[in-house]
Amino acid sequence: MEIERSPLARPFPQLPAIAGVTLRVARARYKEWNRCDLTFAELAEGTSVAGVFTKSACASSEVELGREAVKLGCARALIVNAGNSNAFTGYRGREAVEHIQSQVSAALGCAVDDVFVSSTGVIGVPLPIDKARAGIAAALAAQPCTWEDAANAIGTTDTFAKGASASAMVGNTRVELAGIIKGSGMIAPDMATMLGYVFTDADVAPAFLQEALTRANAATFSCITVDGDTSTSDTVLVFATGKAGNARIEGWDSPGADAFAAALADVCRNLAQLVVRDGEGAQKFITIRVSGAVSDDSARRIGLTIANSPLVKTAIAGEDANWGRVVMAVGKAGEPADRDRLSIAFGGVWAARNGLPVEDYDEAPVSAHLKGEEIDIAVDLGLGEGRATVWTCDLTHGYIAINADYRS
Amino acid sequence: MEIERSPLARPFPQLPAIAGVTLRVARARYKEWNRCDLTFAELAEGTSVAGVFTKSACASSEVELGREAVKLGCARALIVNAGNSNAFTGYRGREAVEHIQSQVSAALGCAVDDVFVSSTGVIGVPLPIDKARAGIAAALAAQPCTWEDAANAIGTTDTFAKGASASAMVGNTRVELAGIIKGSGMIAPDMATMLGYVFTDADVAPAFLQEALTRANAATFSCITVDGDTSTSDTVLVFATGKAGNARIEGWDSPGADAFAAALADVCRNLAQLVVRDGEGAQKFITIRVSGAVSDDSARRIGLTIANSPLVKTAIAGEDANWGRVVMAVGKAGEPADRDRLSIAFGGVWAARNGLPVEDYDEAPVSAHLKGEEIDIAVDLGLGEGRATVWTCDLTHGYIAINADYRS
Repeated sequence: MEIERSPLARPFPQLPAIAGVTLRVARARYKEWNRCDLTFAELAEGTSVAGVFTKSACASSEVELGREAVKLGCARALIVNAGNSNAFTGYRGREAVEHIQSQVSAALGCAVDDVFVSSTGVIGVPLPIDKARAGIAAALAAQPCTWEDAANAIGTTDTFAKGASASAMVGNTRVELAGIIKGSGMIAPDMATMLGYVFTDADVAPAFLQEALTRANAATFSCITVDGDTSTSDTVLVFATGKAGNARIEGWDSPGADAFAAALADVCRNLAQLVVRDGEGAQKFITIRVSGAVSDDSARRIGLTIANSPLVKTAIAGEDANWGRVVMAVGKAGEPADRDRLSIAFGGVWAARNGLPVEDYDEAPVSAHLKGEEIDIAVDLGLGEGRATVWTCDLTHGYIAINADYRS
Repeated sequence: MEIERSPLARPFPQLPAIAGVTLRVARARYKEWNRCDLTFAELAEGTSVAGVFTKSACASSEVELGREAVKLGCARALIVNAGNSNAFTGYRGREAVEHIQSQVSAALGCAVDDVFVSSTGVIGVPLPIDKARAGIAAALAAQPCTWEDAANAIGTTDTFAKGASASAMVGNTRVELAGIIKGSGMIAPDMATMLGYVFTDADVAPAFLQEALTRANAATFSCITVDGDTSTSDTVLVFATGKAGNARIEGWDSPGADAFAAALADVCRNLAQLVVRDGEGAQKFITIRVSGAVSDDSARRIGLTIANSPLVKTAIAGEDANWGRVVMAVGKAGEPADRDRLSIAFGGVWAARNGLPVEDYDEAPVSAHLKGEEIDIAVDLGLGEGRATVWTCDLTHGYIAINADYRS
């Protein structure tokens, strides 16, 4: 089956070079394809690392080992395998990851815990160690490549390469951030996986880097959904090489800490939205703004319940301003809500206010809004100050075609 | 849009007459259609009632009033309106329900709290009191009708009428139970609603009737899902007229209590499964058996997470034995699970055991099983004794067609 480029795709942006980061790609041939499927990012000595990982109870060995290694705070290399997720492969899967770590640490003269590994693709098949070994050797011998090459090499069923950048002033030093991400969905029997990597030349202590990532994640990657399904391998890592020469950011009181955290959140938000734009079968990009909830957390949960509702997603696909389905989704979220204080708007036009349809509701501007590619839904609970914004896509025949019609 | 009869439909069964229950239907014309859309069940004096209701925080007035009235334990009438759900209509919706209660209580000479009202259909439009009034007057003047007439009159987007029955020996007295249900999904801008009613001639104290229904509900209606969305109006009521003349069932120690509860659970299970069989776009009926969980509740939550996963549902639609998607769903359920103890079977054939693909796995019988209409998925967590069975249907182009392609 030929998957077409998403109609919501964006061109790959110009990304800045990040001092201390060297990217290389190679052909490990994890599948029967003639494309680069192994990505090797070499990182300068002294690079800090932070990470967030899937909450799946059935996480892959890559995730298990990465969760532990990230606590040590140091990184020298990132290896990403595309075409085989190595998930649900027991001890043999773990051996493959440990083999990669030892091969790379020997080549770079670093600790095995400094080598981070991610894999995405078919599950239930242990990652073949011989292919990984040859692929890493080829990468070590290869010329450095571009961000776009790497963004393509980490992809599986993605229909376009995804990247984003930002910069920040830390004291008098300008620091750069560049990120790439893969994720859209899966084709049987592959697993959907979101793998995101942000690189910066800023000098940042690992503990603060983790705090800034955790905070950014809560408002970005944790606020997107395509179908509510969660991969066993989802991973976002941030690497800070320190080559910009700024005074090290140790905590929120350090000069430039806020600016750096804001730039990191910016890159994360852009990367997260690109994943939604490559959602399987997506025709529309939906922004859901929830306000008036009892807390920000409650607002986020209500937003995600709306975003995951098949009935809301199909209504948007059908360009139908069906606010009744939004009411339904709010009601089932398990969060405080009062039917008689609830207000719902599409494209800035309130369809229902305080639990009643708006009397002089004019559907014409709403219908016009729903015919577009960028859909805005606002929900006000009328209870408190909690707010959140989440992003999703519509549910279309394309999703069914990709996930049901195609046979492995 | 013409909705075709579900391929999983069942013929309407022979249901026994229940002494003390008289059914009538009428045309209230809540929509522009020429069909009976108001159902009136008159119940003998002394009828006990029990109910379970949607947990939606945005429930309709019918649900709010029903929740309170059911605590009093007595019923003399049930009115079901089809074509208008009266949900999200504020005080005007509540007035319509109160009007129906007072009209019916005046006609029957009973308390207003003895009159139960349900409504299903379009939301955001207050139920028109004049149409309800005329409909009730017409029903009061009408000849009694059959179970099948009533099952058709309570339906909205259902593609077939649904009923089930059972009997039980209470002491030396045979008691009969008959039930009808509606539910399948919704067409914009209508709301999906599951409304189920069970009638029995058994003499049962209200408190025990509630206990038996709550228990039956946990293993039946609470174990089905079509798309994970929850209506603002879901309601199941049980009415016991006491006309069979058995010694009243007061508690679990009363003679025949277990037999009655088992028969009630039987009817509930059959009705629940019929709703799944009328799931929007359903082509396959899926039974998911979860064992080895830390508790029955945990097993049920894992089962429902699998049942609600769009990726699992589309895999079954595609007749693909994609156990990786089942692993994914188990992992995201938020319940205790251990990747390396997890086993998954389709149609009785284990595809993965203890966290690894089965070495000599023969896909041929599994493929044959998946081509059928009745699909069996078994998941063993390997952790404890908790078990549950849930039922769902696949996710197909039909679901998208019904919910996105059709415009209101």
